[in-house]
Amino acid sequence: MAPSFAPNGGFAAGRSSTGSVTGRLTSVYSEVQNNRIDYELPLPSVLKKPFKIVDGPRSSAAGNPDEIAKLFPNLFGQPSSMLVPSDDSNTVVPDHKLKIGVVLSGGQAPGGHNVISGIFDYLQDRAKGSTLYGFRGGPAGIMKCKYVELNSDYIYPYRNQGGFDMICSGRDKIETPEQFKQAEETAKKLDLDGLLVIGGDDSNTNACLLAENFRSKNMKTRVIGCPKTIDGDLKCKEVPTSFGFDTACKIYSEMIGHVMIDARSTGKYYHFVRLMGRAASHITLECALQTHPNITIIGEEVAAKKLTLKDVTDYIVDVIVKRAAVNYNYGVILIPEGLIDFIPEVQHLIAELNEILAHDVVDEGGVWKKKLTDQSLELFEFLPKAIQEQLMLERDPHGNVQVAKIETEKMLIQMVETELEKRKQEGTYKGEFKGQSHFFGYEGRCGLPTNFDAMYCYALGYGAGALLHSGKTGLISSVGNLSAPVEEWTVGGTALTALMDVERRHGKFKPVIKKAMVELEGAPFKKFASLRNEWALKNRYISPGPIQFSGPGSDAVSHTLLLELGAQA
Amino acid sequence: MAPSFAPNGGFAAGRSSTGSVTGRLTSVYSEVQNNRIDYELPLPSVLKKPFKIVDGPRSSAAGNPDEIAKLFPNLFGQPSSMLVPSDDSNTVVPDHKLKIGVVLSGGQAPGGHNVISGIFDYLQDRAKGSTLYGFRGGPAGIMKCKYVELNSDYIYPYRNQGGFDMICSGRDKIETPEQFKQAEETAKKLDLDGLLVIGGDDSNTNACLLAENFRSKNMKTRVIGCPKTIDGDLKCKEVPTSFGFDTACKIYSEMIGHVMIDARSTGKYYHFVRLMGRAASHITLECALQTHPNITIIGEEVAAKKLTLKDVTDYIVDVIVKRAAVNYNYGVILIPEGLIDFIPEVQHLIAELNEILAHDVVDEGGVWKKKLTDQSLELFEFLPKAIQEQLMLERDPHGNVQVAKIETEKMLIQMVETELEKRKQEGTYKGEFKGQSHFFGYEGRCGLPTNFDAMYCYALGYGAGALLHSGKTGLISSVGNLSAPVEEWTVGGTALTALMDVERRHGKFKPVIKKAMVELEGAPFKKFASLRNEWALKNRYISPGPIQFSGPGSDAVSHTLLLELGAQA
Repeated sequence: MAPSFAPNGGFAAGRSSTGSVTGRLTSVYSEVQNNRIDYELPLPSVLKKPFKIVDGPRSSAAGNPDEIAKLFPNLFGQPSSMLVPSDDSNTVVPDHKLKIGVVLSGGQAPGGHNVISGIFDYLQDRAKGSTLYGFRGGPAGIMKCKYVELNSDYIYPYRNQGGFDMICSGRDKIETPEQFKQAEETAKKLDLDGLLVIGGDDSNTNACLLAENFRSKNMKTRVIGCPKTIDGDLKCKEVPTSFGFDTACKIYSEMIGHVMIDARSTGKYYHFVRLMGRAASHITLECALQTHPNITIIGEEVAAKKLTLKDVTDYIVDVIVKRAAVNYNYGVILIPEGLIDFIPEVQHLIAELNEILAHDVVDEGGVWKKKLTDQSLELFEFLPKAIQEQLMLERDPHGNVQVAKIETEKMLIQMVETELEKRKQEGTYKGEFKGQSHFFGYEGRCGLPTNFDAMYCYALGYGAGALLHSGKTGLISSVGNLSAPVEEWTVGGTALTALMDVERRHGKFKPVIKKAMVELEGAPFKKFASLRNEWALKNRYISPGPIQFSGPGSDAVSHTLLLELGAQA
Repeated sequence: MAPSFAPNGGFAAGRSSTGSVTGRLTSVYSEVQNNRIDYELPLPSVLKKPFKIVDGPRSSAAGNPDEIAKLFPNLFGQPSSMLVPSDDSNTVVPDHKLKIGVVLSGGQAPGGHNVISGIFDYLQDRAKGSTLYGFRGGPAGIMKCKYVELNSDYIYPYRNQGGFDMICSGRDKIETPEQFKQAEETAKKLDLDGLLVIGGDDSNTNACLLAENFRSKNMKTRVIGCPKTIDGDLKCKEVPTSFGFDTACKIYSEMIGHVMIDARSTGKYYHFVRLMGRAASHITLECALQTHPNITIIGEEVAAKKLTLKDVTDYIVDVIVKRAAVNYNYGVILIPEGLIDFIPEVQHLIAELNEILAHDVVDEGGVWKKKLTDQSLELFEFLPKAIQEQLMLERDPHGNVQVAKIETEKMLIQMVETELEKRKQEGTYKGEFKGQSHFFGYEGRCGLPTNFDAMYCYALGYGAGALLHSGKTGLISSVGNLSAPVEEWTVGGTALTALMDVERRHGKFKPVIKKAMVELEGAPFKKFASLRNEWALKNRYISPGPIQFSGPGSDAVSHTLLLELGAQA
């Protein structure tokens, strides 16, 4: 237990002569980072021995199979695949060298580097002499043929590390015919046998379009996707979770646990915590299950019940009033980043404002307000002054209101304050209220991956290597049976077209992988709903503490995943 | 490595029939919390065997000894004490039961519960049959005689846990003659032999006044202080660090490390991170040493160099421009919460505004501005509009500008944006700038104490028990030699009067323990200053990762402490 004189062990730099894109090799590493590099990852047992690939039945689509069939004439209907142990002493996959590209697409999620080391190690283990190219800066790297050849020294310092800085990511999309052409040229130039696209729902849809395109041109380049997003909204039966979700939720829950203990210690703050995750509220729900806050707003429930902002405010205020009656003038409230996107009346107001602001002069006297519908005017007047101003002043280059910039947690604090003041005057509330706002966002995207994410990503990447090696295309790497020990995890690929539906955009059908929203009938929400009243009035706070990499707590898995798998979390 | 089905082990509740002040016993615990309860703490070897107390030479004061002598006629000059092994087989302290009170004062700091378990265990081990009272809700608990008797079951679930919720804290002060009288009554009513005051500089000054008062009344109640504050500004040669600083800085550094990797991965954000610590910039400096940000503003340096807000902005902008030239359009910038308190011109502006706002009508046309001095007017016009409004609108009940509410990080982003725009037009800057603001504050106050804080606090509490048992008063518990293994730590008490100086307030001399500011000639700042230019342009980011309780990194100690002790951090 002696204090150490070397808080930062320092990664022995300069192992590689290839140089780093971003200078990771010139960095010193913390003792924890340094130690994580050499953390040995277990593989599912099917990946440790000879295996063969078994195809399932013909697949369909998540919706509108006829349209999906038209959009993917070459790929539609293809089966999902599963790796199973092979009795043959021969390896089942052809013994030749491969040329594979890998790309990171969209926002960071802890574990991305491990997907890359997974596929790299697969190639080393099973297709010796293969080449792995890392496209730099996301899909733009494919289009511009900007890449780096990844070798063992290059990858080493990124093993089990957070961030996407090994090859960086980007938000460009390969969409237009010209862009597809560029991708083809790169594939041909590098003589690619395969491409691994690590991304969210959009990126995987894109991966499938690319697979279809290569196939239609009779190119040899196969494309496999990999489920990445801290938001947790890319999942289905075969893909139980997206990577990064586990780590991000644990980082946020650590912080929530801290402010809970703070709230209980001082007895005088209501902490309003906005959490990343705009389209779906999985992160907020998971953090609630991990920490037991007094109030949790789930966007999907707000939408399903068609709640107004006033309803949400009243719900919060009612709990605060009840808590004040038992002398608890403190609490913790979780709010999903995308809350206002779930409230129809707010959407209407914003649409009307966009219209008015684009065409009319906004006069000081407020005559312009007459152009709002009654409902929108009422909502506008209900909003705190600062939010009104934000709606009026902060517009993007297209003149639209910047919804993402609205600090929902501060807005709610002000609305709650106003309502509590009213109740105080009515004599129904006698407490004291001090709101404290927090936004936990960027901190969660680039943490060191938890043991779970580290292992899961490694298996996803290693499995993707097997799929590409077997000539599979248009599949998403799928690792299952995640509540069992790693040895028993299943490994395979799910037909991306099977996850798709279509959306009508600009008069055309566009394929989309629908975002997985919080299911109000799903086990995680039901567990939360069965406990939230108790959490509201009694204090059942749990402080998960910092992520541990060894010892107690280090192998915990997210509650959402376990509950969805039917296990007791 | 199998995922666990029990992410939350659940502390076996209901062990105690005394009931908990705040309901900790009704909580379930996370696996990490649960495991920490039983973490065994090593004691300095002097506390493990018979010891005796050796007094040092007569002490003086940090400044104005004559005035301090007048203010503390009974205590001034008393020596500091040191525990040393005793060869006597007899214990050196009298073998009688004690009645001791303990109080937490001011903001939370990780480790407070361990100070309490330390003194509790001392009494169990060395003065069997003693009673420990916990005063509830801070010094107000002493004045109102609100307390709980602490027993082994009561204390158990708080061992090695964050927060102050065992007995809670408060910010009241025992200052007036009536309040001193109330404290006396409580001490008499409970027949207190001693009182342990766990707090910051003010609370320890107060503890000394209380000690002086009890002594002057010939009461038997002794008072010992304990150095608590995450801000790290209560320290001196004998008290090398205040507890909580280590944990808080590591929590903040974890988050800073994450946004660093985020910055490097996306390549497009400048993260402006405001860190708690208003009076001194120790936290910011320590976090800089742990993480190597591109820019770090140290309040004490800004004050010493008499920098203006424009100077600070230009410094930041210059670095951003230089980084843009080598294609780094991202970075991380640390800012101490109290920055604007260090800038004289801002203080002048605020003083003038307070005066004007209290007496004059603020007209829309801005005629009121003519009342500002030229310098203040210039600064006011330099401030972003949102900050101008904040200064004008948000006032406390006394009508004063609420400096603490100013979001310095957002203010700087706006000022940097404006200046970069100017340089762009001048043709000296061609980069892209996106500022992202963060405030890391409350998250750091209530984390699970690091191994260092857990051990340090336990020794502080255990040692305080020894001091009270030996009849010492007016000392602050002092544990030293902290860069050595715990076994070699020294334990003793330092005369509180020796830390004091006087300040003139309302025509009277008031004793104060001067806050320890960042020393520009001290080793931590000098190390930072020698490296910051390299950190500015090259990316030397370190991501310390989450606090570990076992394995690599778990026994690291803050760089500030090690550097101040002359060790290499």
